[in-house]
Amino acid sequence: MTDPALSQPSAPDRTDSGTGSDTGSETGAGPRLVLGQERPLKLDCGAELGPFTVAYRAYGRLNAERSNAILICHALTGDQYVADPHPITGKPGWWQQLVGPGKVIDTDRYFVLCPNVLGSCMGSTGPKETNPETGRPYGLDFPVITIGDMVEAQVRLLDHLGIDSLFCVIGGSMGGMQVLQWAARHPDRVFSAVPIATSWRHSAQNIAFHEVGRQAIMADPDWCGGDYLNQGKTPHRGLAVARMAAHVTYLSEPALHRKFGRRLQNRAALSFGFDADFQVESYLRHQGSTFVERFDANSYLYITRAMDYFDLALEHGGVLANAFTGTPVRYCVVSFTSDWLFPTSESRQVVHALNAVAANVSFVEVASDKGHDAFLLDEPQFHDTLAGFLDGAAEHRGLPHAEATP
Amino acid sequence: MTDPALSQPSAPDRTDSGTGSDTGSETGAGPRLVLGQERPLKLDCGAELGPFTVAYRAYGRLNAERSNAILICHALTGDQYVADPHPITGKPGWWQQLVGPGKVIDTDRYFVLCPNVLGSCMGSTGPKETNPETGRPYGLDFPVITIGDMVEAQVRLLDHLGIDSLFCVIGGSMGGMQVLQWAARHPDRVFSAVPIATSWRHSAQNIAFHEVGRQAIMADPDWCGGDYLNQGKTPHRGLAVARMAAHVTYLSEPALHRKFGRRLQNRAALSFGFDADFQVESYLRHQGSTFVERFDANSYLYITRAMDYFDLALEHGGVLANAFTGTPVRYCVVSFTSDWLFPTSESRQVVHALNAVAANVSFVEVASDKGHDAFLLDEPQFHDTLAGFLDGAAEHRGLPHAEATP
Repeated sequence: MTDPALSQPSAPDRTDSGTGSDTGSETGAGPRLVLGQERPLKLDCGAELGPFTVAYRAYGRLNAERSNAILICHALTGDQYVADPHPITGKPGWWQQLVGPGKVIDTDRYFVLCPNVLGSCMGSTGPKETNPETGRPYGLDFPVITIGDMVEAQVRLLDHLGIDSLFCVIGGSMGGMQVLQWAARHPDRVFSAVPIATSWRHSAQNIAFHEVGRQAIMADPDWCGGDYLNQGKTPHRGLAVARMAAHVTYLSEPALHRKFGRRLQNRAALSFGFDADFQVESYLRHQGSTFVERFDANSYLYITRAMDYFDLALEHGGVLANAFTGTPVRYCVVSFTSDWLFPTSESRQVVHALNAVAANVSFVEVASDKGHDAFLLDEPQFHDTLAGFLDGAAEHRGLPHAEATP
Repeated sequence: MTDPALSQPSAPDRTDSGTGSDTGSETGAGPRLVLGQERPLKLDCGAELGPFTVAYRAYGRLNAERSNAILICHALTGDQYVADPHPITGKPGWWQQLVGPGKVIDTDRYFVLCPNVLGSCMGSTGPKETNPETGRPYGLDFPVITIGDMVEAQVRLLDHLGIDSLFCVIGGSMGGMQVLQWAARHPDRVFSAVPIATSWRHSAQNIAFHEVGRQAIMADPDWCGGDYLNQGKTPHRGLAVARMAAHVTYLSEPALHRKFGRRLQNRAALSFGFDADFQVESYLRHQGSTFVERFDANSYLYITRAMDYFDLALEHGGVLANAFTGTPVRYCVVSFTSDWLFPTSESRQVVHALNAVAANVSFVEVASDKGHDAFLLDEPQFHDTLAGFLDGAAEHRGLPHAEATP
């Protein structure tokens, strides 16, 4: 930890009866907990997974009442490095402008947890980790997991840390799906919830874009039917194409126009060839080539699949409102005007469902031309909204303001 | 020809001083003219191309005044089979509902020409054709061509057929780019022009989507640096991924939702695997796998590049209106509400530029939820618009109505 104010929580004095063991907390990767040794996770696909590992980062201190915990859920290609530099890329944490001492998600006030989701590749159990049954990487032997499974793995993490109730669960995109799943399934353990730039079910268009990415990966001969790790290969090219295809959907035409337009890359005239003539091409290629250095191709398959499978209404007789009946959770739903991947209309459907059960919900559509990625960027209206909501919720929760530090 | 009313034109009595020779007109592929033998095409890249072949289909009869010719320009993956079955897929012509005797583009009244664009793969010269200098397929030795080059090849075709002036030039998407280029560069040879679902310059977002497709093709080891035809391979997987990625952009979220939603494909429950669980996945895979049977991967690279390079303002000092100064052409600009690839705003910019030079222009934004593909589909408002515009223009041009057939 580079910032002394960001510290691991005091060791929880209660653990989940020996099902958790902490490994590697002294490494740069942060704590990795082995969970589910005695009680495997029952996955939605019917399989059982255990033991499994959850890697996470924690910031701030859990208070004596254990009432100030915020769970941050990351997106498809995100990870637990929400507020400190990424160990592979060296880039700042993906929400470092939001999370830290004195920031909107104030680590002087809150205890912030961010676990790497099940199925991912930054330390939590996923297809690149070793299958204890074979001693080799899971590859496609890893079970297909769901957003619900990700949440249940997080439940085990909280059980282990002795946190009965989250002050808030927050996340954007796939993180927002986890937020909705958390609040719907465990309303007694969630005081407030902030689903951002997300939906209650993955749309046909979004499934289609994900399928393109998966096909790009599976078309790469170096994917080896998913067994590339055992065969000493990596489907870099397919994964890069998948990333490029997805990346376009994270932006907006106005943002691309403003950022790149038709400007040429390091040249005065068109090359009449297939090099990256345009800045936007060069940018996309860069996005593809840097992504493959930090992400596992099979994880990309599994996590996109989990998102595709997400349909919160389906679990509740096809009626979304039923997912929230009697909910005590305070909601703040956020969307962005130029987000065409998770458009405001889908957030509005969540709000309508919450209104239908008389839930406590506020809804803000933030004006932004930055597309879906806006939730990761410096958007003052979004940050102000979040700050206001958290302050209000903290007051209701009786959480004191952070003490003034000398 | 299956329909007796669709016949080749009477042999033109004037040819372009021996630069054209007709080959293979008796084959199912339709006429293929070898042009530019004495006078090669000067391409925008600086290279010269000649001889080159233009394959085309013709429907109806050229009148004695040679004043009733309509040129139809096809889109990226289209071809000359506009009104009769495709020789590879066996499917109806891509505008068969619009083009034919008694239809909106009435082949009893008009002489309709549809050439395969330069760079494509259905008979016109492109990267898969034989390079006369080497006796082997061009591959990447084919010069990078532009929309302007495609138009100039069509100009040579018209010269050969003895058609000085087109009654109308019509096309959607990339076809619309050719329409704009025709009208801007050869206003004296175009009486009326209908650019549909198109733009005056390819946007940054569209360049980005094209770059994804190109990277998918070039990532396929069977692409062999573009030399696959000489090496007996075909980059089927990469081309299929490119097609899938592009195909999503041709539709709209509402259309995908209506057509597929989250419905499962031939199964009652999720498979918890990576097969095509959802109908939309199965549909996309089908789009990819059928496309590779009829399209050449290098052609895909070249034609997407031509679209990316298109910027009609750039050729005119950065001011689009300058492209149309003093134009005598009658324009009908058409866009579709749900087309997010070539949104109405871009058509409106064309209309504004035409208004700025006091051109004769009508503009219709057709309400449709079918996305960019709407221009290929049965959209009554679009068809009515086109019928009304053509009738009015024909009256001004003094073209008689089709004679009543017994």
